[in-house]
Amino acid sequence: MARKQLNIGLFGFGVVGHGLYEVLQKTPGLKANIKNICVKDKDKPREIGAEHFTYDKNDILNDAEINVVVELIDDADAAFEIVSAALRKGKAVVSANKKMVAEHFQELLDLQREYNVPLLYEAAACASMPIIRNLEEYYDNDLLESIEGIVNGSTNYILTKTFAENLSYADALKQAQDLGFAESNPILDTGGFDAKYKLLILLAHSFGYIATPEDLFNLGIDNIGDLELRYAKEKGLKIKLVAQAYKGTDGTFSAFVLPKFVTPEDRLYHVDDVFNGVITKTSFADTHFFVGKGAGAYPTASAVLSDISALTYDYKYEYKKIYREENLSLTDNVELKVLLRHKKDDAEALKLHFSAIEEAYTNKDSGYITGNISLSNLKKLQAAQPGEVSFILISVVSEQEAAIAAQEALA
Amino acid sequence: MARKQLNIGLFGFGVVGHGLYEVLQKTPGLKANIKNICVKDKDKPREIGAEHFTYDKNDILNDAEINVVVELIDDADAAFEIVSAALRKGKAVVSANKKMVAEHFQELLDLQREYNVPLLYEAAACASMPIIRNLEEYYDNDLLESIEGIVNGSTNYILTKTFAENLSYADALKQAQDLGFAESNPILDTGGFDAKYKLLILLAHSFGYIATPEDLFNLGIDNIGDLELRYAKEKGLKIKLVAQAYKGTDGTFSAFVLPKFVTPEDRLYHVDDVFNGVITKTSFADTHFFVGKGAGAYPTASAVLSDISALTYDYKYEYKKIYREENLSLTDNVELKVLLRHKKDDAEALKLHFSAIEEAYTNKDSGYITGNISLSNLKKLQAAQPGEVSFILISVVSEQEAAIAAQEALA
Repeated sequence: MARKQLNIGLFGFGVVGHGLYEVLQKTPGLKANIKNICVKDKDKPREIGAEHFTYDKNDILNDAEINVVVELIDDADAAFEIVSAALRKGKAVVSANKKMVAEHFQELLDLQREYNVPLLYEAAACASMPIIRNLEEYYDNDLLESIEGIVNGSTNYILTKTFAENLSYADALKQAQDLGFAESNPILDTGGFDAKYKLLILLAHSFGYIATPEDLFNLGIDNIGDLELRYAKEKGLKIKLVAQAYKGTDGTFSAFVLPKFVTPEDRLYHVDDVFNGVITKTSFADTHFFVGKGAGAYPTASAVLSDISALTYDYKYEYKKIYREENLSLTDNVELKVLLRHKKDDAEALKLHFSAIEEAYTNKDSGYITGNISLSNLKKLQAAQPGEVSFILISVVSEQEAAIAAQEALA
Repeated sequence: MARKQLNIGLFGFGVVGHGLYEVLQKTPGLKANIKNICVKDKDKPREIGAEHFTYDKNDILNDAEINVVVELIDDADAAFEIVSAALRKGKAVVSANKKMVAEHFQELLDLQREYNVPLLYEAAACASMPIIRNLEEYYDNDLLESIEGIVNGSTNYILTKTFAENLSYADALKQAQDLGFAESNPILDTGGFDAKYKLLILLAHSFGYIATPEDLFNLGIDNIGDLELRYAKEKGLKIKLVAQAYKGTDGTFSAFVLPKFVTPEDRLYHVDDVFNGVITKTSFADTHFFVGKGAGAYPTASAVLSDISALTYDYKYEYKKIYREENLSLTDNVELKVLLRHKKDDAEALKLHFSAIEEAYTNKDSGYITGNISLSNLKKLQAAQPGEVSFILISVVSEQEAAIAAQEALA
């Protein structure tokens, strides 16, 4: 097959952009060269000469010789402007910006269709791990039942340190920031938003469902307290920030991001530091498990490179599952077994929201309840008492288990 | 993209063939139907009516309407005859037969090129795990440094039982046979031959190197004794049958199948039962880890189905790395840190073959040595004393470590 020559216009020259530049120098077999790089700040010192850079996006967007735009900037709104303009000009686009892709999924899909150009974004979900490509290509017919994973490297690093080195959450976050794994304003990561954007992207390629960020519930790790940490340690568990989606029996599915207790038997237990791990479950193949680095300049650049390489073969996402139109609907009407940590005096009021209570514990100023609660009740409590309660998922309650528990509660 | 209508001629109706038949019934979205099934034994009772079957391979090979042959028979020689005849007739082929693919890799590559038809065999390596597709598509430019994995489900089941239930090797094998995970003549699995065939296939798609089965060294698990098992248990290790290949610095690479001690920190430690797990290491993306069921009718049928689905899009392996011709050469001139179990009186003679000794132990009838030995010496000892010695890999000695050890030995 003849490979296309790619002339790349690159937006952004941060760690990933620079990583990509280096990586491309080392892979001359690939017929791709960076023709121009657009950056914002004229005065910032850079590793390569000023002749490589422009400060005007139109120098790239209007250059007819540039057939691929690689977008690696931080600002999701500016990124969307660039990406949509590039698609309208018939240029293929590679992006690593999960927030941008998640917030504009439908528009970006429409633009790809209208202008018949590909947009690839493997690096936007789990960095180097080829998860989108596998969901798109390999789970075509063997239908997915569920997908579950650790998809945010920064929070996984923080949680790993919290457990391995007995650090408090605040100290672990500080350490992650000092090492550059977490932003100075880390709420996108620690609040579970970044994980939600990735879940949204995975959902489209897993189940063919296009959600908006508002559709999906996310709870992060920034409110995990000592009581939950001690509970986990005493029972030999770890806490991981887990994004998951699973189908019900009636054309519904649920999707959310929650901190979760994982046992040593759970594959995710062993996914530590900045690694990401995703478990898929299908009707025929049982479970698959993918692990790879979820952060870092080279792993991200490697995914971008793989997308660039795919463009030389005219690869594009087919979005088969979206066009198959299975009419799935998202539901909060599912039962979750959770631990809820609360202020001491709130226990009795909070219990009313549970469909089944397993344990209750209080000490002089706080306590916890474990038991089954619906996702919709969990969302209500969280919205009503942000910061005062903390939920950790123990397990998803199957429809069968929920029915049995409901019968027992009646009896 | 318009999808091709596939008319399938199926060879073999064992557990996988029957699994595929069922799976195809449940995926009507796929434009593929089984037109004819060729089996050997007329009198065997089958789950579906006799009208679906033929007993003459030419009924399929000469049927111009059949555009895909799916080969799922046990006999590698008969399989090669069928597959090569089908390719010559311009039919696309899907096969799950690792022995056949491994023994005839070059011929099958030539046939695909000469007749311009695809041969897909994802199910031949690690069953449902999409490892070949990932090696072929995703590690195109980010060059692989090494690949390592548990690629045989039967032996992994046996080893898991040996450790988890304290069974002897013989009892665990018996149990695996009773459950249908191991053949009545299990030497292909337990001798590491099946793992070697898979390694050979992975090598072609990882490094672009076409080996013959004779080129690659394999040692199985059938000679592991109580001494090694006790050693592992005392030190908190497990023994896994590991296939691996890794590049040196000078255009050489090594590839072999050996039992290996793995620590709880090693990702392969947690790959148990019939699961397979593969770790890739690349220059940019660091490590990736893939886990999936390595045996079973449905997981294997699922991989076959995925290949069939890919054919509806005219997918074929590009074999880019083979055609890139990197001129790698296979070498045995590498150092391995191993445990060698031996008969008591042989210790001193065996030590002479090591480049460095770390520990030596003897009891009243046997003993072990741990230390560094070259792969070529290991192969010589194994050939000279089959059954009397047992090697378990501890680790690959890096070129740097080997140089330091050589200096220390001189000093």
